[in-house]
Amino acid sequence: MRRRARASGEFDLIARVEKRTRLPRSDVLLGIGDDAAALRPPAGQCLVACVDALIEGVHFPRATAPADVGWKALAVNLSDLAAMGAMPRWATLSLTLPRSDPAWLDGFLRGWQRLARRHRVALVGGDTTRGPRAIAVQVLGSAPWRKLLRRSGARVGDSIWVSGTLGDAAAGLALVRRRLRGVNAADARFLRGRLDRPEPRVALGVGLRGRAHACIDVSDGLAQDLGHILVAAGVGATIDAECLPVSPALQRAVPDARRLLAHALNGGDDYELCFTAARARDDRIVALGRALGLRLTRIGRVTAARGLLLRTSSGRHVEYAARGYAHFR
Amino acid sequence: MRRRARASGEFDLIARVEKRTRLPRSDVLLGIGDDAAALRPPAGQCLVACVDALIEGVHFPRATAPADVGWKALAVNLSDLAAMGAMPRWATLSLTLPRSDPAWLDGFLRGWQRLARRHRVALVGGDTTRGPRAIAVQVLGSAPWRKLLRRSGARVGDSIWVSGTLGDAAAGLALVRRRLRGVNAADARFLRGRLDRPEPRVALGVGLRGRAHACIDVSDGLAQDLGHILVAAGVGATIDAECLPVSPALQRAVPDARRLLAHALNGGDDYELCFTAARARDDRIVALGRALGLRLTRIGRVTAARGLLLRTSSGRHVEYAARGYAHFR
Repeated sequence: MRRRARASGEFDLIARVEKRTRLPRSDVLLGIGDDAAALRPPAGQCLVACVDALIEGVHFPRATAPADVGWKALAVNLSDLAAMGAMPRWATLSLTLPRSDPAWLDGFLRGWQRLARRHRVALVGGDTTRGPRAIAVQVLGSAPWRKLLRRSGARVGDSIWVSGTLGDAAAGLALVRRRLRGVNAADARFLRGRLDRPEPRVALGVGLRGRAHACIDVSDGLAQDLGHILVAAGVGATIDAECLPVSPALQRAVPDARRLLAHALNGGDDYELCFTAARARDDRIVALGRALGLRLTRIGRVTAARGLLLRTSSGRHVEYAARGYAHFR
Repeated sequence: MRRRARASGEFDLIARVEKRTRLPRSDVLLGIGDDAAALRPPAGQCLVACVDALIEGVHFPRATAPADVGWKALAVNLSDLAAMGAMPRWATLSLTLPRSDPAWLDGFLRGWQRLARRHRVALVGGDTTRGPRAIAVQVLGSAPWRKLLRRSGARVGDSIWVSGTLGDAAAGLALVRRRLRGVNAADARFLRGRLDRPEPRVALGVGLRGRAHACIDVSDGLAQDLGHILVAAGVGATIDAECLPVSPALQRAVPDARRLLAHALNGGDDYELCFTAARARDDRIVALGRALGLRLTRIGRVTAARGLLLRTSSGRHVEYAARGYAHFR
């Protein structure tokens, strides 16, 4: 990797990164320290690769604890692998910092490493440069090609599922921005934790291999991300508004039913998985959720008629006009 | 990949990136467009991965043409692969732009794609975000593990070689910063071209597989980068100052012999390869250079005594105190 920008102490930064992120894996032949890393690819599987960057002030509030930034930078990438049914293996990190700040870096690496250890992800390449704080992460994983979970593949009649609860992270962000008030301390902590420390659903993704027809992670809000699945297959969906899984904390924080529904449908950054599977597999999906200790909720079904219909509590069907993160703000 | 930040037109950016960087490869099972890419790893080879970021104002002058930025962002990464003897296969790109600027993006992608086509590198993942202009690139290639070129491995008695010419890019940067004047237009164009459009020495790296004992790319200046090779093997080197390859343009631009030597020793950003090989292979290295149409110069030899000795034109040996890019400025 290029060393030029690592003048005046940045060599130390890379050494620091290497020291604090050690995680032995037999498929890492050569880690940080040469011009590039050498990795042993998995036999009989395909590689799964993605990249995601976090910019301070755009993807995380400026006041975010460095450990949370480190966690989240890795988590959002692992979430993409999870959505493919891939097992994570290696990561590279490109870190831009406004100044040499060992305390911030140590915090960042602590959060990163905590999640990395949990999923056994080895950091194999790093690059540090000076500039406005930004983090670009690339992760590599593997999966059997024939069992890869793709966005396309949803079939009419499929059940639509979502993991965990929806809208919590958006409420966490609203708290930071002081657009949500009067929330009790425990609920605020929970909601903020959902924003700062999303749990990539890696085990669920692997469990869904060969079972789900289509899968995506919910980063921009359920409506928009489910929309990608529907467009990819040229199908539609009916969603039961009543079924959307929301946490007790979110229900208390946003008691108004309409606003609560908006959070569940449009709130981004939850990093849950939304997937479709044959109705005949409903029981096995339920069993999988139980085995993983993870709430899996059937929220609707795939329809031949395009578009997204919302079935409200009164039984009415309302056509949902796609509104994403951009418009939600 | 995360879509959240791609609000207000950034979906279009990714579509634009995808459209303008198409390059079919049979080992890309799934490219841009799902949560992650799926790639078929090479049988019997190891993967070689590296990451490198360019920040505007730090790694390239603000006035740099977007096509040059696109070229260089890929080139510096391919140079790392070249230094390992790896063949490039795939790349991912994380692009941070201050605003939606299709003209800049198109220019960037034109430069990128020109180099990508030459080396058959497929862009398989992309992420665009808002912020101060920055580009993080990750490239993946492959090489036979046993023939990988590493920094370590230099042996006492080895010849030390360098490709191309040294110091041109540093002079190009000095021109941009108006620290170098009175250079004729053709020479200025050449030197600036060496800064903006470095040629990653991929074919040389592959040709050196199993022949070179150690290899690194010259990004921070010959003295510093050769220093990494020496430290890794616990050896030293004697360099013939007279032998350092400098271009006629650089000789004209920097007529003073001492300053010229400083450029050749300390100038960064040339992205030539510096490598060591057994003296018995000298003829084959010369033949390789001839076959590739690339100047390869034997500049010295590896010694048991640590440190870097410089043999001057008068035959004197001067101990070279390692000075890198940071101090050069």
